[in-house]
Amino acid sequence: MESQQQLQGPRRPARIGICGLGTVGSGTVNVMARNGEEIAARCGRPVEIVQIGARRDNPACDTSALNISREIFDVAANPDVDILVELIGGTTVARELVLTAIRNGKHIVTANKALIAEHGNELFAAAAKKGVTIAYEAAVAGGIPIIKSLREGLVGNRIEWLAGIINGTGNYILTEMREKGRTFDGALGQAQELGYAEADPTFDVEGIDAAHKLVIMASLSFAIPLAFDRVYTEGISGITSEDIRYADELGYRIKHLGIGRRTEQGVELRVHPTLIPESRLIANVNGVMNAILVNGDAVGPTLYYGAGAGDEATASAVIADIVDVARTLESAPDQRVPVSGVAEGGQNGGDVLPMDEVVTSYYLRISAHDKPGVMSQVARICSDQGISIEALIQHEPADGEALVPVVILTSRAKEGRLRDAVAEIEALDTVEGDVVRIRVEPLG
Amino acid sequence: MESQQQLQGPRRPARIGICGLGTVGSGTVNVMARNGEEIAARCGRPVEIVQIGARRDNPACDTSALNISREIFDVAANPDVDILVELIGGTTVARELVLTAIRNGKHIVTANKALIAEHGNELFAAAAKKGVTIAYEAAVAGGIPIIKSLREGLVGNRIEWLAGIINGTGNYILTEMREKGRTFDGALGQAQELGYAEADPTFDVEGIDAAHKLVIMASLSFAIPLAFDRVYTEGISGITSEDIRYADELGYRIKHLGIGRRTEQGVELRVHPTLIPESRLIANVNGVMNAILVNGDAVGPTLYYGAGAGDEATASAVIADIVDVARTLESAPDQRVPVSGVAEGGQNGGDVLPMDEVVTSYYLRISAHDKPGVMSQVARICSDQGISIEALIQHEPADGEALVPVVILTSRAKEGRLRDAVAEIEALDTVEGDVVRIRVEPLG
Ligand SMILES: NC(=O)c1ccc[n+]([C@@H]2O[C@H](COP(=O)([O-])OP(=O)(O)OC[C@H]3O[C@@H](n4cnc5c(N)ncnc54)[C@H](OP(=O)(O)O)[C@@H]3O)[C@@H](O)[C@H]2O)c1
Ligand SMILES: NC(=O)c1ccc[n+]([C@@H]2O[C@H](COP(=O)([O-])OP(=O)(O)OC[C@H]3O[C@@H](n4cnc5c(N)ncnc54)[C@H](OP(=O)(O)O)[C@@H]3O)[C@@H](O)[C@H]2O)c1
Repeated sequence: MESQQQLQGPRRPARIGICGLGTVGSGTVNVMARNGEEIAARCGRPVEIVQIGARRDNPACDTSALNISREIFDVAANPDVDILVELIGGTTVARELVLTAIRNGKHIVTANKALIAEHGNELFAAAAKKGVTIAYEAAVAGGIPIIKSLREGLVGNRIEWLAGIINGTGNYILTEMREKGRTFDGALGQAQELGYAEADPTFDVEGIDAAHKLVIMASLSFAIPLAFDRVYTEGISGITSEDIRYADELGYRIKHLGIGRRTEQGVELRVHPTLIPESRLIANVNGVMNAILVNGDAVGPTLYYGAGAGDEATASAVIADIVDVARTLESAPDQRVPVSGVAEGGQNGGDVLPMDEVVTSYYLRISAHDKPGVMSQVARICSDQGISIEALIQHEPADGEALVPVVILTSRAKEGRLRDAVAEIEALDTVEGDVVRIRVEPLG
Repeated sequence: MESQQQLQGPRRPARIGICGLGTVGSGTVNVMARNGEEIAARCGRPVEIVQIGARRDNPACDTSALNISREIFDVAANPDVDILVELIGGTTVARELVLTAIRNGKHIVTANKALIAEHGNELFAAAAKKGVTIAYEAAVAGGIPIIKSLREGLVGNRIEWLAGIINGTGNYILTEMREKGRTFDGALGQAQELGYAEADPTFDVEGIDAAHKLVIMASLSFAIPLAFDRVYTEGISGITSEDIRYADELGYRIKHLGIGRRTEQGVELRVHPTLIPESRLIANVNGVMNAILVNGDAVGPTLYYGAGAGDEATASAVIADIVDVARTLESAPDQRVPVSGVAEGGQNGGDVLPMDEVVTSYYLRISAHDKPGVMSQVARICSDQGISIEALIQHEPADGEALVPVVILTSRAKEGRLRDAVAEIEALDTVEGDVVRIRVEPLG
């Protein structure tokens, strides 16, 4: 009740400075202009853009009435700015910009997953020292309020695991491959044409972007430091239409997932293509959409679905953060939601389980010569490693083909043992080339 | 920065008093005991149950170490209680209890949708006057953080519409009817046996419970007062397996939805069975699970899925509210999220669109004599009302049956015009009995 008097009059506007006027920056300016009145009503005070730092104008938004500086560091130095909104991307200049703004006592809102995943521990510590906050809802899954859900909505839970489709480009490619029978390269080209994929698609397709987002969600879910260098990351460029078809036959969909899970021995952190039973809701999330399935000990499974990218969808998350911070400008730091999800000292060490120790099931596709005995050899190798075969598809060889594809679903097994079994299978005379191996998760 | 000193030492515990030790009360006690340490770390202070008001013990939870009063109003009067958690249900005593607690300066957490939907305007005003808050996440869709998502996560959006499966009992019944071919009565009996439905299932099956929840979500989404008496409500007891089957044939699922939508002429508020295209994610939400699809102008469609009821799932939401309130005990009222979603004076009048003015499409099932000319009569009646026929199924009459079921999907039309058309169709000599009419929503 200490500031009862603040109830009396209207509060002064919260003053924000936006750095970067690209896709997300222009989206933020546009949505704030369009919905400004409603946003102020919800925030309890007006939110004013007092400065924008941008090297050049962006025709996607009208900034004629706004104060623009061509030097983004002006915004970090501007004494009129309460909240610096970092939307330049990258990790070098962005880190410097954010650290400078924090030193100058500004709160931070950012959409930059790479920055948070790679430098978050350092930035959070700097912010805590200065008593300011860093908000990063837009850094994970665009407009889906997943950070808020994990950090506040599920606060009563011990989160057991989460699994997310957190890269729209990858999901678009896998969806096109399945629905239109395209090859990986064909679907990627299509994604590039539509602007869903960058000219250099490595970040999206090889799982680095997903790893950034996974690390952020895992840190909040399991109260561990951000550990980007500890994520096991596998991309989707090796997925073929053939595997998508076989997965279908077995009742599964292939999705590129970021998975985090608590185990007695440490936290699992992994990004890889995954077979999911088609009856799961998340298996039916298609196109560029994102979804995260989170399992809490009290609430059970919950799922959050929406656009993972796009100018206005991402702006939606940026503005939610701005409002949270704007509303609590006068609050003591301990009255705000802690940046890392837990109050200082509340994180645990965050041992990450080595990938060899991860237990899961596998889809294996083996190219075998059509000779008797292959299957019994494969079964023996698996059984020696304590792995059993749960399902098997064997088609007739195509006309004139000597090789038959043998598709197997295994029981749950340690990754290390599976790897040994696969090496032995690949060494068989009756088997040609590499065994395709995709992990399978029931998510139930 | 005014209370920088609060950073120095640990904060005193937040002291809560729980009234009602039934399903949700015992769940809350159990989860708080099990996860107390993590909850304190996330909250930034311990959360202590200083009193429980319960007429009798509940063997589902261990309260031997807790201070129990047999009189719930003791909790509202207890000067040591910061936050009163109302879990008794009902609207008479609960209203009195909450008003008393507010008068005594306590914050409120409640899971009571009937109380909020029917008396929320009064309670919110009383709380605002006293500078305390009322939190009600658990009142809608159990463990799904939908209130938080609407009120905070999507704060940058003008929410256009929302549609929710917000009654688990109803969704269980419709799922059983579709998947197992059960009748409505058979599925209801099954739900009762499993404890998913009450002995008197009226609240769930006739849509009253869903209407309570819809009104709460609509108030937050559209910044309007709570308007329970303005919701159009239709239950699922008239749905037959036959209609579920025909819907399937047409590529739709029947779900019991609560729908809110902004229009130029007012807000739509309606609860009724609805055909949804099977490709929509929400069409695949089955069993007792809940999901809410929310469409914001910036973010586009987002969906929130999880358990809508159950002891611990609901406790998850109760605890999230407790933590929010506990963290901000020392905050000025305007630094907290506004109870109604907008700061005082921010609500608009909230005109509700009369049901006759609502525009949607329809599924019609007509029992017609197998005579030439019926279809042209029906088509003419529709056309006279400006309604066109988009799809039609007509099966052969069953052996020895004189009546053929004619199933029609109409174009979008005003409810009033459709009603007139249906009355004319029912008056035809060639048509027997009532026309079955179920609304269709693309939700795209
Ligand atoms: N796009 C999405 O859908 C999306 C979704 C979620 C999160 N994000 C994140 O949001 C951030 C911004 O993404 P974006 O898509 O908006 O990127 P973008 O379209 O490339 O925009 C970046 C903007 O920052 C400016 N900028 C970059 N480096 C700068 C520097 N050193 N000095 C001054 N200005 C600089 C660029 O100016 P120039 O044009 O002059 O180079 C450009 O205006 C990234 O961290 C991204 O990961 C994006
Ligand atoms: N169950 C769910 O899954 C769920 C989900 C979401 C929201 N909710 C809401 O949560 C609230 C509680 O539901 P619930 O399922 O926990 O109900 P419940 O199992 O019937 O428990 C209600 C408790 O309140 C006590 N109580 C009721 N009236 C009282 C009075 N006048 N004085 C003293 N004690 C009284 C009851 O005591 P006695 O046993 O002595 O009668 C009982 O212990 C309701 O508002 C409900 O709508 C429930």
